[in-house]
Amino acid sequence: MTDPSRIWAEYVLAAPSRRAALAKARDMTVEQTVEVPAQCVPPPSQPMVGTVERLERAGASRWRASCSYDPAIIGDSVPQLFNLLFGNISMQQGIRLVDVKLPESLLNRFPGPAFGIEGLRQLCGVRGRPLVCAAAKPIGLSSAQLARICYQFAAGGADLVKDDHGLASQEAAPFGERVARCQEAVAEANQQTGGRALYFPSLSRGAGELWEDLEYARSLGCRGVLLSPMLLGPDTVRAVAARRDWAILSHPSFTGTLLQRRHGVAPEVLFGVLFRVIGSDGVIYPNAGGRFPISLASCRAINQRLRAPLGRLRAVFPVAGGGVDAERVPYWIRQYGNDTMFLVGSSLYAQRDLRAATARLVDSIRRSSDG
Amino acid sequence: MTDPSRIWAEYVLAAPSRRAALAKARDMTVEQTVEVPAQCVPPPSQPMVGTVERLERAGASRWRASCSYDPAIIGDSVPQLFNLLFGNISMQQGIRLVDVKLPESLLNRFPGPAFGIEGLRQLCGVRGRPLVCAAAKPIGLSSAQLARICYQFAAGGADLVKDDHGLASQEAAPFGERVARCQEAVAEANQQTGGRALYFPSLSRGAGELWEDLEYARSLGCRGVLLSPMLLGPDTVRAVAARRDWAILSHPSFTGTLLQRRHGVAPEVLFGVLFRVIGSDGVIYPNAGGRFPISLASCRAINQRLRAPLGRLRAVFPVAGGGVDAERVPYWIRQYGNDTMFLVGSSLYAQRDLRAATARLVDSIRRSSDG
Repeated sequence: MTDPSRIWAEYVLAAPSRRAALAKARDMTVEQTVEVPAQCVPPPSQPMVGTVERLERAGASRWRASCSYDPAIIGDSVPQLFNLLFGNISMQQGIRLVDVKLPESLLNRFPGPAFGIEGLRQLCGVRGRPLVCAAAKPIGLSSAQLARICYQFAAGGADLVKDDHGLASQEAAPFGERVARCQEAVAEANQQTGGRALYFPSLSRGAGELWEDLEYARSLGCRGVLLSPMLLGPDTVRAVAARRDWAILSHPSFTGTLLQRRHGVAPEVLFGVLFRVIGSDGVIYPNAGGRFPISLASCRAINQRLRAPLGRLRAVFPVAGGGVDAERVPYWIRQYGNDTMFLVGSSLYAQRDLRAATARLVDSIRRSSDG
Repeated sequence: MTDPSRIWAEYVLAAPSRRAALAKARDMTVEQTVEVPAQCVPPPSQPMVGTVERLERAGASRWRASCSYDPAIIGDSVPQLFNLLFGNISMQQGIRLVDVKLPESLLNRFPGPAFGIEGLRQLCGVRGRPLVCAAAKPIGLSSAQLARICYQFAAGGADLVKDDHGLASQEAAPFGERVARCQEAVAEANQQTGGRALYFPSLSRGAGELWEDLEYARSLGCRGVLLSPMLLGPDTVRAVAARRDWAILSHPSFTGTLLQRRHGVAPEVLFGVLFRVIGSDGVIYPNAGGRFPISLASCRAINQRLRAPLGRLRAVFPVAGGGVDAERVPYWIRQYGNDTMFLVGSSLYAQRDLRAATARLVDSIRRSSDG
């Protein structure tokens, strides 16, 4: 029985024996909460120490430890949630967070995704098939050149066009100019084709200045943005989602060291739970078969967690990045289902005519689904 | 010859042969910049692709690759700096960032530390010896109880008293109340002892709300704060430092998966360079001999980088956390020198009388240095 009023975190620990694993799990529950020697915990703080609820063998020298925590530890702080689950223990070894269950009382304190699958479908007017997101790049192009690329993607039928996450405010394409030109280009394509493609600029200023950039993008008509939670801080995503004004695609840059096999956070927890809890409407993750090592099973687990019931938080789009083109997309739709977004870049750029390449991909998706 | 007008990043790569290492290094310079297949890079973007300048054997199946990049890639964006150095490649394997050199032109675009070693010494009026920072905890205590602890540390002679980084806004000690009580308690101790101890609250709300909390702390008289760059986003530290109003201690929570031996970022680069560039005045890192695995050589390298010339950025305090008590502190002073801050928690809490324990530690430091 797991008490649903508590936070449950499950870790796979490397340890030579059950006794060593239990000691490691208990140290962890102290390290992550009161952070004083166990004999120094004053009575009012004792309920804050986590409890090791179960310990099971999970392989040779590997143990699965279920720990529970009082949600009062979090208050309503996203950084403190990340801190509790993997803050100081990130600096130890042989600890992998493989599952998290958050009580409704805690989930209700976070705004969660403002749009989710349903909201994004409404914004771009597409039902019954996966969405296509194309990425405008590379850095070094002028705003006009990037806008031309956005135009071609939108005219070809992409549902979303996002900035490459490396587009900050480089001299070749300063932020303000770039966002204005790209948004205009997508609007122009929409007008010509009757489409409803969306342009999501990448915002890379954190802290205070972020809000200027958000308001600016909104004033131009942008309905959403691309944010990298690990570069901007996960709480930045929470704060943007709380305003309910911008849809959020989150990008996995700088997450990778968390994803290692023996020490870190399982991808379905990081992308599938935490990135949804902070308020992403779509979560970009490295797709199996692309340039980064991740298993198909992990990708399916991410998808499942992003769409599964989670308090009153909206279901959000898994955004599979990499390894997708017009030939292979029927396979991916069979694997992942319709409520998926495909992020395509290289496979389009490798073709000469971006508009035609996009049209072929969207056509292939339409023929492989109900849309 | 390294061209000082470019960004230099040195990686240790795992690869079976020189040829494979060179291919991996070249892929990396494309992945981290233009992120399109090499044959699709348009002419204006070609200067944005990094250059593999050198490749040397660094052990069995390990190669040291020096890459250089045009600083125009960064603009003035801290997230984009982290993204260039280790964003997407964090999701690959066998890549470790072991050195970084940033051109003056880029360093000058960041505000850097507002106080540094000199500024913090002025604030607390201490010269000629290492500083002592004590941590108020644990979570679960009331604001009054935490304030009592702050009082004892300050009365015992601690130079700084910081909140535990896990203190967010828990019900037992809501943020506003806690910061007010703790700041009062330290001020009271100062009045009684003639000391100038500083209290640095931990801020754990990112994005917009951070500024309210900062102004609130400042209005109470706090001169600095504790921030966790990887929980709040590194750019949050930059933005706070840019205001020149608050000194910043940065905390290493959630950094740990970056610190692994074969894939990640060397501690002297993460703590010694990047955390300084973003504007920390003191950088807390896990000390050798404490609860986390890190070598003495790494700690010394962190210290060296934090104090070494770096454009016009101030030298900042290395803050060694863990493994320090009154008996061992003479050893650590010999290892690390006077321009060090020692963060002490457990070794004080393990004694009954916090004030007397702090006084013993400070006394031991005085006797082992010139202060």
